[in-house]
Amino acid sequence: MDYRARFAAALEALHKEGRYRVFADIKRDCGQFPHAVKFEGDATRKITVWCSNDYLGMGQHPAVRSAMHEAIDTGGAGSGGTRNISGTTHYHVELEDELADLHGKEASLLFTSAYVANDATLSTLTKLLPGLVIFSDELNHASMIEGIRHGGGPKKIFKHNDVADLERLLKATDPSLPKLIAFESVYSMDGHISAVEQICDLAEKYNALTYIDEVHSVGMYGPRGGGIAERDGQAARIDIFNGTLAKGFGVMGGYVAGSKDFCDAIRSYAAGFIFTTSLAPAIAAGALASVRHLKSSQLERARHQERARTLKKRLHAAGLPVMDNPAHIVPVFVGDPVRCKTVSDTLLERYGIYVQPINYPTVPRGTERLRLTPTPQHSDADMDHLVASLTELWAECPISKMPMADKEAAE
Amino acid sequence: MDYRARFAAALEALHKEGRYRVFADIKRDCGQFPHAVKFEGDATRKITVWCSNDYLGMGQHPAVRSAMHEAIDTGGAGSGGTRNISGTTHYHVELEDELADLHGKEASLLFTSAYVANDATLSTLTKLLPGLVIFSDELNHASMIEGIRHGGGPKKIFKHNDVADLERLLKATDPSLPKLIAFESVYSMDGHISAVEQICDLAEKYNALTYIDEVHSVGMYGPRGGGIAERDGQAARIDIFNGTLAKGFGVMGGYVAGSKDFCDAIRSYAAGFIFTTSLAPAIAAGALASVRHLKSSQLERARHQERARTLKKRLHAAGLPVMDNPAHIVPVFVGDPVRCKTVSDTLLERYGIYVQPINYPTVPRGTERLRLTPTPQHSDADMDHLVASLTELWAECPISKMPMADKEAAE
Repeated sequence: MDYRARFAAALEALHKEGRYRVFADIKRDCGQFPHAVKFEGDATRKITVWCSNDYLGMGQHPAVRSAMHEAIDTGGAGSGGTRNISGTTHYHVELEDELADLHGKEASLLFTSAYVANDATLSTLTKLLPGLVIFSDELNHASMIEGIRHGGGPKKIFKHNDVADLERLLKATDPSLPKLIAFESVYSMDGHISAVEQICDLAEKYNALTYIDEVHSVGMYGPRGGGIAERDGQAARIDIFNGTLAKGFGVMGGYVAGSKDFCDAIRSYAAGFIFTTSLAPAIAAGALASVRHLKSSQLERARHQERARTLKKRLHAAGLPVMDNPAHIVPVFVGDPVRCKTVSDTLLERYGIYVQPINYPTVPRGTERLRLTPTPQHSDADMDHLVASLTELWAECPISKMPMADKEAAE
Repeated sequence: MDYRARFAAALEALHKEGRYRVFADIKRDCGQFPHAVKFEGDATRKITVWCSNDYLGMGQHPAVRSAMHEAIDTGGAGSGGTRNISGTTHYHVELEDELADLHGKEASLLFTSAYVANDATLSTLTKLLPGLVIFSDELNHASMIEGIRHGGGPKKIFKHNDVADLERLLKATDPSLPKLIAFESVYSMDGHISAVEQICDLAEKYNALTYIDEVHSVGMYGPRGGGIAERDGQAARIDIFNGTLAKGFGVMGGYVAGSKDFCDAIRSYAAGFIFTTSLAPAIAAGALASVRHLKSSQLERARHQERARTLKKRLHAAGLPVMDNPAHIVPVFVGDPVRCKTVSDTLLERYGIYVQPINYPTVPRGTERLRLTPTPQHSDADMDHLVASLTELWAECPISKMPMADKEAAE
């Protein structure tokens, strides 16, 4: 048994397929976001980041940073324990109250990430509700898929965003069994927004719990940043929210929100919650400041939507294959992993534009793309430079000019 | 299907068993550690923390805090992305280099926690090495158990710290199959230290990979804080290290270290690594400062060992049922979940001593205990107060005076 050879072979497979990933080593320039610096050996170069999920630029917000500084000066670096064993600080308690309020729920529960929140919560629900059947959108995030798989119970996959297919599956399931519908509000790689109201209608009709992953919408949608369910007036009909503090809120960590007993049961039974050091106090404090700010401020949300609309319009006008959607994500279709990486590399080297190629397993093979995320801090000049650079690149070598209809079919 | 009733029933079971957990809401007082403040409704009270896993008090170290402040001012709050999509900052790169060096390995890989590092790495190894048989110590941490379970491959559980039993299982396994021995260096609830050298001997003899969880030893053992394997001169024989940045190093996050190809394969295939926002830059920066400091400074390690030895000696002298072990953990046997909680509550209310009761599922039923973690910052006066308080409590109501032999048998 040659272990080294096995690892090497696994890597060789990725190289062959053209989807071996190289991480860009960057340092953000606080106050200058989305402008940053990229390290290349001993040298550095200036870049504009076009692929950050710090969607609103809250990572550099003065209120967030000052809350973090204060927490470090007051309580130090780490929490020093699991939530149960000395790792619950007052910042955690306040943040959980704030998040429960954000979603209009009785309680919330913090995790080290939204990935862990999905994995731990979904797998534990199967234990708490014996016989639970989970209905899962086919494009759900890897963390939901893993959580459902780890629970080990029966799952039924419904076609992406297809409520008719969902109803067909619900109808075919024993009415006496516990049920849960797991879906996202904004699908991050395509920008699709789910039919929250219709899904809630079906959940009511078939007495199923609703589990919504609002990772790509909290902070960004709804009058208080409560996400798509809040925007659509459906928050009260959602049983369980999953959200992140690392994207719209610009910090780190994840959570679920729901009834008091639901949160208490997950708190008490989920290994992924119990056996891990809690979030650093400064992280909780920064997230708390961010959630509070975005509950009242509309500026960031309005500007964010305007920037996304403007970029889409300009890319369309330039004849570039932007994949249409109603959200803040701006995917540009390429459809091949090697080309996708070449475009990305060229954008960086020639134009200082940083946008990572998105390939399998993040998106299905054949749907490789650039995924642009305009933020409130991207200026008109940044956009001019991006559109001109992409136009030049596509003119040199027509990477993909398929009409949208074909591209959607390719997915 | 009454979902609310199901969650309520799950909680009621915990109340009945006396192991429903109540988190203490605390705020550490930076510079005064282990002294802190506990929130009780609108009131607060001063406490001394005796159960923190910030074992060396690095969470309040000036170098750590100043590195975090600097990172927040330079780069902001969150990383804004997964490691692949704009979330690799220069702090992450430097920290991975530093950790590889700490363990004398070619590479290392950061995770949001050591829990996720164990879960993601062990489950992915089963995919990368088809047929892999994992040999796992029966007292391994929940995160290792979950990782092995999630991998779905064959596992063989050997008796705790029993190399004869391990060899028996290795011998009985097809020599052509890939094998991995998963164990810890310090078992955190008992303070047992594993026979690293003998396990490495067996791994060599049977061509198995060695996977050591040094979560409760990194920073604290070995001339550079590389853990028990470094202390015992065995680091070069370990294939894979798992460690945390949240305990001895006082910050947050986890990692694995090993060969370049091993780390690259986990980086490329582990969902728990790929699909989650990377550690906040300030967390990586703080951890980097901590690891660097503890590579050269012996002060904290020496004082830590002295404090642990002194506390054990004093508890013994007072006739209290301390569970002997060669590490820095000081467990005091109680053996009943309700009594354990009563002792803990009384210590807090009457004496301002905070030590969380340790009960199932963290330890087996019937072995409930207080788990004291003396740090370099616990003074003689803190210890006087602790030993006097415990003596008073045990005199009032003889909770457990079983001789050690019986207690060990009870485990």
